[in-house]
Amino acid sequence: MALIVQKYGGTSVGSIERIQNVAQRVAKWKRAGNDVIVVVSAMSGETNRLIDLARAIQPQPDPRELDVVASTGEQVTIGLLAMALMELGIPARSYTGGQIRLLTDSAHTKARILSIDEHNVRADLGAGRVVVVAGFQGVDADGNITTLGRGGSDTSGVAIAAAMQADECQIFTDVDGVYTTDPRVVAGARRLHKITFEEMLEMAGLGSKVLQIRAVEFAGKYQVRLRVLSSLTEPDIPVDEEAASGTLITYEEDAQMEQALVSGIAFNRDEAKVTVLGVPDKPGIAFAILDPIAKANIEVDVIVQNVGSEGSTDFSFTVHRNDLKRTLDLLAKVQKAIGAREVVGDDKICKLGLVGVGMRSHVGVASKMFEALSDEGINIQMVSTSEIKITVVIDEKYMELAVRTLHKAFGLDEPAEPALPV
Amino acid sequence: MALIVQKYGGTSVGSIERIQNVAQRVAKWKRAGNDVIVVVSAMSGETNRLIDLARAIQPQPDPRELDVVASTGEQVTIGLLAMALMELGIPARSYTGGQIRLLTDSAHTKARILSIDEHNVRADLGAGRVVVVAGFQGVDADGNITTLGRGGSDTSGVAIAAAMQADECQIFTDVDGVYTTDPRVVAGARRLHKITFEEMLEMAGLGSKVLQIRAVEFAGKYQVRLRVLSSLTEPDIPVDEEAASGTLITYEEDAQMEQALVSGIAFNRDEAKVTVLGVPDKPGIAFAILDPIAKANIEVDVIVQNVGSEGSTDFSFTVHRNDLKRTLDLLAKVQKAIGAREVVGDDKICKLGLVGVGMRSHVGVASKMFEALSDEGINIQMVSTSEIKITVVIDEKYMELAVRTLHKAFGLDEPAEPALPV
Repeated sequence: MALIVQKYGGTSVGSIERIQNVAQRVAKWKRAGNDVIVVVSAMSGETNRLIDLARAIQPQPDPRELDVVASTGEQVTIGLLAMALMELGIPARSYTGGQIRLLTDSAHTKARILSIDEHNVRADLGAGRVVVVAGFQGVDADGNITTLGRGGSDTSGVAIAAAMQADECQIFTDVDGVYTTDPRVVAGARRLHKITFEEMLEMAGLGSKVLQIRAVEFAGKYQVRLRVLSSLTEPDIPVDEEAASGTLITYEEDAQMEQALVSGIAFNRDEAKVTVLGVPDKPGIAFAILDPIAKANIEVDVIVQNVGSEGSTDFSFTVHRNDLKRTLDLLAKVQKAIGAREVVGDDKICKLGLVGVGMRSHVGVASKMFEALSDEGINIQMVSTSEIKITVVIDEKYMELAVRTLHKAFGLDEPAEPALPV
Repeated sequence: MALIVQKYGGTSVGSIERIQNVAQRVAKWKRAGNDVIVVVSAMSGETNRLIDLARAIQPQPDPRELDVVASTGEQVTIGLLAMALMELGIPARSYTGGQIRLLTDSAHTKARILSIDEHNVRADLGAGRVVVVAGFQGVDADGNITTLGRGGSDTSGVAIAAAMQADECQIFTDVDGVYTTDPRVVAGARRLHKITFEEMLEMAGLGSKVLQIRAVEFAGKYQVRLRVLSSLTEPDIPVDEEAASGTLITYEEDAQMEQALVSGIAFNRDEAKVTVLGVPDKPGIAFAILDPIAKANIEVDVIVQNVGSEGSTDFSFTVHRNDLKRTLDLLAKVQKAIGAREVVGDDKICKLGLVGVGMRSHVGVASKMFEALSDEGINIQMVSTSEIKITVVIDEKYMELAVRTLHKAFGLDEPAEPALPV
């Protein structure tokens, strides 16, 4: 008998019928002899409806009150799912984040999970009940309702799996696993049966929408066995077959198997590039540029600074597109103080990355990547690398072409196992 | 400086604009130097939407889970109203029932209030904040979310006013006070500036929809000064004028003033009559009839038993129309055991009552009432009296005629103060 945590997103619980489908799926896993905890999101569209109500009253809603309003979406789903389970003869009980004291810090709308009180959950499981928990939400030490930010339900699922030492955390979504790249862009994209935690982390960071990066980080921290599965398949397929159809995130490289050089290609066009031109090439300048950005709570991603010449250099970084205007406004204020010649922004960019633990022990991945892009006439604006990832920033209009080109160049199009290193 | 608790119902917060109106009204009372606690219902239609969702999944929703779902309606409103107040520059903070530990018993969907933790509320008021509390909801000792049943927001308001020893509890609704009778039935119905607690209790019990009877009972128990006001008037009229426009529920008969014989006429057609014919006229028979009804949690209202003849008698009572079928089914089972000849039900009835503390010291009210009804050819099926109330059950089709007739007969049509006793 295993303890399984299942998380279902907004699309999976988007209607009465879908909630009933989820109940059937949960019932199947329960009847197969597992203890099951289910974490759910708000019905699709509901969180947006609630946020729209709030914005109609306060264009910049008060974060504490926004959390009070937004957290009701998941609360509705937990009650409905518990009822749907009872209708199938499965005893069930729902809990809000507050009711299991899913304790977070007080950073409303983007709170971080600190701890979970597992007492009631254990008692219910012991009594044979399925426990249904509201994702995305918690309470701070003063009892204020907090939310974890978009995609926080994944993190709730993983956090609960970690706290309860679950045997597996299953993230049910509208795709059936992690792919070598987005199948909507590359027809030949293949589902990966396994992916290492580090690869998954890099894929999520690069924009693969299958799992939220915070959830992956959390899983890694507590070594939670994580599996991505589709909630859109028939709910009555056997438990074994269903599990075989997803992607498992593992924590060990499989020494037996020849590693693929590149496991996947992720990309996004959510970011914008900011370049500070002609800054003095001296210590402290990066801090002077980024400090006001950080203080404004704007997340900075890729950062590139070249070796300067004649005492002056250029400094570039990317931020979320929604933050571009605020970033440029902030830099306009400090431009003089840091002695920069000019600050320019560009939101017509795309970030694209190759990910694979295989590249750790192989040289030549970067040059092969640059060659493939160059052959298609695609200019590289920024480059950043980590042990198992190479990220480039290119013109947005080349995005699809670049992904298809690299998918082919690294043998990801092959139908069977990933290609051997070249 | 006074501490005012204001309660706004679903219609009063039924849209963004109305919530903004409520915020303006609250701001006005706050700026006039009062501490203000606001208790709100769900936006109109929202509770029904949530219950419909639940019923689509479970025709008889599990009470615990129904409360989880239904309580979200008020939670949305408190967040939105707090935001609307902040937009007007009024510091505000919202609380769910659970967050102020509005402790109830565990009778889901119809819980009773036990206590309230006033700690946070006092601290917020001390800091100059308006406190916005979700009506209709609480938590039981195990932290389960409970709701108080329909109209429970009135009760929440009064309970909080009692716990906080507020100077006044103001119930804002879509009428501007308590009337001598329903103005939709009698054009000449007049608003009462004052009404005694006992009269209000009887009016509510008889079907005046202005205040929930549980809220009135609660107010009486803790001597909460209660005022009914309209939320539909312009929010910027002065505080004094606004207060003068409602109806105040008082706890003392005004000795200075000549009491009206009858203060108001209330009525409803929510009930059905059940008659058990030909039961043995012996001790224990009323218990034998009503015990199974009570055990099925069906509320019984008017009960009438006449003196029997030839060892046999008839026994009548009223129940809510929705409970008629269940009641008849229950009695069919015990009919033989209690030796009754026949059990009949009638849901085409109307209950109608005269209420007034003035009738306490005057005889002849009943005979005057019966005479007026008789003059119009209206047959009286049941009669029941209390110190300050006479209730009759008549054929439903005569309802409007009977109300108009009695309104005129007892001088309630007069434009000025109520008529002197005759």
